[in-house]
Amino acid sequence: MDRRQIVRTGAVGAVAATLAGPARAQSLPEVKWRLTSSFPKSLDTLFGATEFLARRVAQMTDNRFQIRTFAAGEIVPPLQALDAVQNGTVECAQTAPYYYIGKDATFAFGTAVPFGLNTRQHTAWLRHGGGQELMDELYKSYNTTAFQMGHTGAQMGGWFRKEIKSLEDLKGLKMRIAGFAGQVMQKLGVLPQQLAAGEVYSALEKGTIDAMEFVGPHDDQKLGIAKVAPFYHYPAWWEGGASLSLFVNLQAFEALPESYRAILQAACTEATEWTLAKYDALNPRALRELVAGGTKLVPFPAAVLEASFAAAKEVFAETAAANPRFKKVHDSYMAFRAEEVLWFRVAENGFDNFMARQSAANRL
Amino acid sequence: MDRRQIVRTGAVGAVAATLAGPARAQSLPEVKWRLTSSFPKSLDTLFGATEFLARRVAQMTDNRFQIRTFAAGEIVPPLQALDAVQNGTVECAQTAPYYYIGKDATFAFGTAVPFGLNTRQHTAWLRHGGGQELMDELYKSYNTTAFQMGHTGAQMGGWFRKEIKSLEDLKGLKMRIAGFAGQVMQKLGVLPQQLAAGEVYSALEKGTIDAMEFVGPHDDQKLGIAKVAPFYHYPAWWEGGASLSLFVNLQAFEALPESYRAILQAACTEATEWTLAKYDALNPRALRELVAGGTKLVPFPAAVLEASFAAAKEVFAETAAANPRFKKVHDSYMAFRAEEVLWFRVAENGFDNFMARQSAANRL
Repeated sequence: MDRRQIVRTGAVGAVAATLAGPARAQSLPEVKWRLTSSFPKSLDTLFGATEFLARRVAQMTDNRFQIRTFAAGEIVPPLQALDAVQNGTVECAQTAPYYYIGKDATFAFGTAVPFGLNTRQHTAWLRHGGGQELMDELYKSYNTTAFQMGHTGAQMGGWFRKEIKSLEDLKGLKMRIAGFAGQVMQKLGVLPQQLAAGEVYSALEKGTIDAMEFVGPHDDQKLGIAKVAPFYHYPAWWEGGASLSLFVNLQAFEALPESYRAILQAACTEATEWTLAKYDALNPRALRELVAGGTKLVPFPAAVLEASFAAAKEVFAETAAANPRFKKVHDSYMAFRAEEVLWFRVAENGFDNFMARQSAANRL
Repeated sequence: MDRRQIVRTGAVGAVAATLAGPARAQSLPEVKWRLTSSFPKSLDTLFGATEFLARRVAQMTDNRFQIRTFAAGEIVPPLQALDAVQNGTVECAQTAPYYYIGKDATFAFGTAVPFGLNTRQHTAWLRHGGGQELMDELYKSYNTTAFQMGHTGAQMGGWFRKEIKSLEDLKGLKMRIAGFAGQVMQKLGVLPQQLAAGEVYSALEKGTIDAMEFVGPHDDQKLGIAKVAPFYHYPAWWEGGASLSLFVNLQAFEALPESYRAILQAACTEATEWTLAKYDALNPRALRELVAGGTKLVPFPAAVLEASFAAAKEVFAETAAANPRFKKVHDSYMAFRAEEVLWFRVAENGFDNFMARQSAANRL
């Protein structure tokens, strides 16, 4: 029997009967799905997570549940991933929920908001803080369900042609930055820019824009931006941890046997760990190489962080006033944040900061 | 057909044929395993992870791979979990590798060493830093393989009858602390004590011992130790993140169909996330309640941390000189640590420390 030989029952919810006879079909049906990613193959850690996911799902089902992965643009453009899942063009998509804040600002809590939860805190909120249930209400209204599938950790603040030394330096700054971060920046005088990734280098070279933000050392290094914008500020206060998701069409998910649903979720959790661990393992060398190549590593001034924090509160309050769903999730998320940071200040930060001091003193 | 009705083929590697006919048996054999834990049921987060694991494995296999979980002492005593797996008394065990440093000091790197990797860094080392492969060599020589299965995050330094204000206060201090941490403490004048958990309260009350360390707020709160030893020091520099493992008997693991092996590993990763997220979600309230109840939250003095750091280096050097396997793993682990901390100092700590300052200023 050729396990690949399946009868597709439609674009969505393709739980197909195999040709192998009722007993095997009953126990393990063949399913073929398509996954569209919002990321290109060049982002090897993010897109790599989709290939890892597909491999693990196949291994756990003796190759009977197969997911074929497509990079951004192969089926639909990067930012139409959610729509493609919602309308059943594909069964699932790897994307960042906060790309869809134009539909509903509440999507932001699926990825990151300015001065939000860090990586561990975000996972704790989703798993044991009521976060997943709250986000599921939103996702359901888009005919989807979604599982955490990847994390970048805290990101870098991006690349600047001139060093940001004070709040004054933000006035009139043309920065490629989107979403809530862009709204907060705007309150500080920044002029947020929309620009395709491929145009960023020459725009920085020509001075059409002054700054751009991306991910972290491993991904940023490939852009070669340091040559034209050498000041690498940190941290990305708008992404203290950015969570990716696998969006799944509701009908496709419900058509899966229960064991496949559990396997898909488990593989998403594995992919989350795989991605985060890979970033954590790859970023140090990339950072070292960037600095050796002339990148100037500079923290954002305290005054910039403080003003951004205050501006972020304003943006949240304005958004909450206009969007009751946003307010509901915001209130849960922020109450959780207050508790988490209080506890992390003790053992976790206490340990990390001591180790950081040993590193700074060259004792590691 | 009763799926529970199986033919056991032996204590270990019980890949049993079902009574349902060859087609189904071929695709999804019934397997029944026993899991012994090193933890009692009262440690609901740690022991809870075994029940979570069993549930997820059952869901992913349509209840055909069943793991029955036993608390410490029900089959074997807590610290004989590894032996029970090695000799096939049970197929698997949830335990902390560092409990077995008496067999080989290298086991410590499976859980935590003084001033070691934090939670994320440890996972990164295991997954993408060569750590798992190095540890597998050790585990294989004990007829086992092991998967990460749970994490506590950075722990608390424990409970002290008198506040530790200087290195002088450690001289002659009778502290319930074991393993490498005990060896390091000994170099600073502490007298490490062995004591059953049930005897700790009255020993502290009588002054037979002066201090004890356990886990973190959620677990520690249940001990009620604050009444007799109110100074709660932090951080546990010996456990900047403690990783638990599922040890699996090699023959039992190899007898599993490939899909079940993948499912077991995926469930371990899910259990790791579940445990860590649960601790992260539960610790804040416990800490708040402890402090409201009179617990004095006090950081270890910088001089104590510095001296402990230097003493830990000595202990590592002495152990490495006597144990080539320890040296090999140590060198990989410490090289990885130097790189990780360098990178975490930038975006991750930069973000966390700003949030900590907002928390301290009551702005969250």
